[in-house]
Amino acid sequence: MNKQKILLLVLDGLGDRPDERLNDQTPLEAARTPYLNYMAERGATGLLDVVGVGVRPGSDTAHLALLGYDPAKYYSGRGPIEAAGVGIAVGKGDVAFRANFASIMGNGQVVDRRAGRIESVKAFEPALNKIKVPGFQFTFKAGCEHRGALVVRGKGVSSEVNGNDPGVEGNREKEIKPTTSAPEAKATAAAVEAYLKQARRCLANHPLNKKRRKQKLPLANTILLRGAGAAPELTPFKDKYGLDAAGIAGGGLYRGVAKTLGMDVINVNGATGGKDSNILAKINAAKTTLARKDFIFVHVKGADDYGHDGDALGKKAFIERVDAAVRELLTLENTVVAVTADHSTPCQLKAHSGDPVPLLIYGKGVRRDCTRKFGERDCAVGGLGRLRGLDLMPELINVSGRAEIYGA
Amino acid sequence: MNKQKILLLVLDGLGDRPDERLNDQTPLEAARTPYLNYMAERGATGLLDVVGVGVRPGSDTAHLALLGYDPAKYYSGRGPIEAAGVGIAVGKGDVAFRANFASIMGNGQVVDRRAGRIESVKAFEPALNKIKVPGFQFTFKAGCEHRGALVVRGKGVSSEVNGNDPGVEGNREKEIKPTTSAPEAKATAAAVEAYLKQARRCLANHPLNKKRRKQKLPLANTILLRGAGAAPELTPFKDKYGLDAAGIAGGGLYRGVAKTLGMDVINVNGATGGKDSNILAKINAAKTTLARKDFIFVHVKGADDYGHDGDALGKKAFIERVDAAVRELLTLENTVVAVTADHSTPCQLKAHSGDPVPLLIYGKGVRRDCTRKFGERDCAVGGLGRLRGLDLMPELINVSGRAEIYGA
Repeated sequence: MNKQKILLLVLDGLGDRPDERLNDQTPLEAARTPYLNYMAERGATGLLDVVGVGVRPGSDTAHLALLGYDPAKYYSGRGPIEAAGVGIAVGKGDVAFRANFASIMGNGQVVDRRAGRIESVKAFEPALNKIKVPGFQFTFKAGCEHRGALVVRGKGVSSEVNGNDPGVEGNREKEIKPTTSAPEAKATAAAVEAYLKQARRCLANHPLNKKRRKQKLPLANTILLRGAGAAPELTPFKDKYGLDAAGIAGGGLYRGVAKTLGMDVINVNGATGGKDSNILAKINAAKTTLARKDFIFVHVKGADDYGHDGDALGKKAFIERVDAAVRELLTLENTVVAVTADHSTPCQLKAHSGDPVPLLIYGKGVRRDCTRKFGERDCAVGGLGRLRGLDLMPELINVSGRAEIYGA
Repeated sequence: MNKQKILLLVLDGLGDRPDERLNDQTPLEAARTPYLNYMAERGATGLLDVVGVGVRPGSDTAHLALLGYDPAKYYSGRGPIEAAGVGIAVGKGDVAFRANFASIMGNGQVVDRRAGRIESVKAFEPALNKIKVPGFQFTFKAGCEHRGALVVRGKGVSSEVNGNDPGVEGNREKEIKPTTSAPEAKATAAAVEAYLKQARRCLANHPLNKKRRKQKLPLANTILLRGAGAAPELTPFKDKYGLDAAGIAGGGLYRGVAKTLGMDVINVNGATGGKDSNILAKINAAKTTLARKDFIFVHVKGADDYGHDGDALGKKAFIERVDAAVRELLTLENTVVAVTADHSTPCQLKAHSGDPVPLLIYGKGVRRDCTRKFGERDCAVGGLGRLRGLDLMPELINVSGRAEIYGA
């Protein structure tokens, strides 16, 4: 059997609800998408409950499910995925946090949870990585803008600790506390507190903050930690599916998912992980990469951002930009293309919802259905029916001619 | 996110098969249902396999599944649900039976399994509750007509006993026997036998039966027990979903399900649990109750009765009566309405079947589909696809804006 390659395009937050501003259509339904429709017409469509029916997924759990890893088994918090994304190897026993730089007052009150969306916190890395806490090692690495990840190593380090992010500006930074009575949790909380105390001191006097003070910019004078977790123990993607895989994503989380599963992460110029990302560059990079890989996961964020902003017209326009880039996929040979989302982000809600997401699978061997358009309600009557996120990889493995026979 | 309230209307036995008498339509398809259609057109529809594909559910297992409790885990026989329905608190370790009063001859032959559908057996309660069996306590409480429930308490009381109902009139009452070799089962069977022996004696001389003898009415001179079970250990509905809930139902079983899950049960004048039930009164009571509750479960029995009678025309007419009452639901604000059934009761079969049941969900935030009518075959191409009973609650939690995010 000819084994085809697989391209999985995840349009973050694509799914939506009928919107009055779009004449009771969803942004995807309202968008002019000739190339996605071309694939829908010649392919098969359906709806996907990414984590489960009615389950409202985060982007982390959703991506694990889409790539075939049951989040109930393999999700251990967002920290380790973010850490993998910025390039820290999270080993067995390590505990990782998402880290955001923020501005605090002398009394601990958080006045800006993103430190004025500071361009980069890379300059803080050397100083922060010099901090010593007896019995523990801390590794900080910067991500995009105000973001980064912090990994704690040490004998008996525990992920059973909360974060210090108050969540709301105007509230005071919280104390890191154990969430169980285990002595390891207590010791870890104390160690992280000790680290943060030193970090605040070193940030206060750091040249970058001195410069920002002069420029009257918000100081990056504390680190807000969230999502403590140990690295999940999982079978790498290649061993699980026999697919040599790569990921293309701007955002740290999505790069982190790819790295966590052992995929190569391809850097693309102009892939920002935001609304302004160069979608065409990502699609073209995916095409190039497919020459040497079996599977490529391409993540495009923008639709989710417009959903969170409640901007249905913006979301529609963004989808049309995606469609223009998707044109490049029509000429791919010997490749099964799947287009779907990690979750719905309805503009009415400005938040993720548990609504199922549209799915299309296009390529040789796909059992073409009667659907001619890529939209939520078109996909609802598609030939793939209503599947679960964990069904996607087996379906793609089958269509691409890679499934082993079960039985004889 | 705005949290909406939820109204779940269960039309017992609604699902059916195309029927020659209705020009090869089902009763629901043939019925004139402008209000249900209005909701279907503006909402989303689908089919529900209440317990599983092809599984032919009892009303008890079906209701557990619809309300999100897997019957494979939480169903422990009908006895404890009926007991909860008539108002006996079934504690841990107690064993409950459904109890029907019947007429027997001196030789034990059952001549009327419903004792001439005696109006009430409440008058027997005091005498029956005086019966003593060493080491065990028995509590009897009357339900509607010839029905009631019997609860056995005692150290090591066991549910591993059969009932004494021969099932068929003309056969002799069976002996209560243990279904395993456990000494507890043996002791329980003997205790229940001893109770029944005394019960028969006390019923024979009871003033109510003396009166019935004079009136030449069938005597209620024995109790047929079925469905022995211990109370299921389950998380109350409120704790499971964060929904303060109430149930409206005439029938003891449905009231029992609501009570077993910790819901308030609302009494409605004219709610008989039969074909003649005042549907409008129930719907209006549901609307009133929603002012102070988050979730209301409304059970309407009639369609199932017509199905068991094989009366397709009667079922169609009953559904039209339901539709007229459903009109009142169209003006509900801030509420997601779901209409479905616990199982199909096809008139051709005069019995429950494993056919999936139609489902509609109507309210703000529902992803409207292309279906414009509430019927079995219309719902089969609806936007919700084919779901399982256990999917219903998560779907309603999502649509009502109450789902917690899973992951980050």
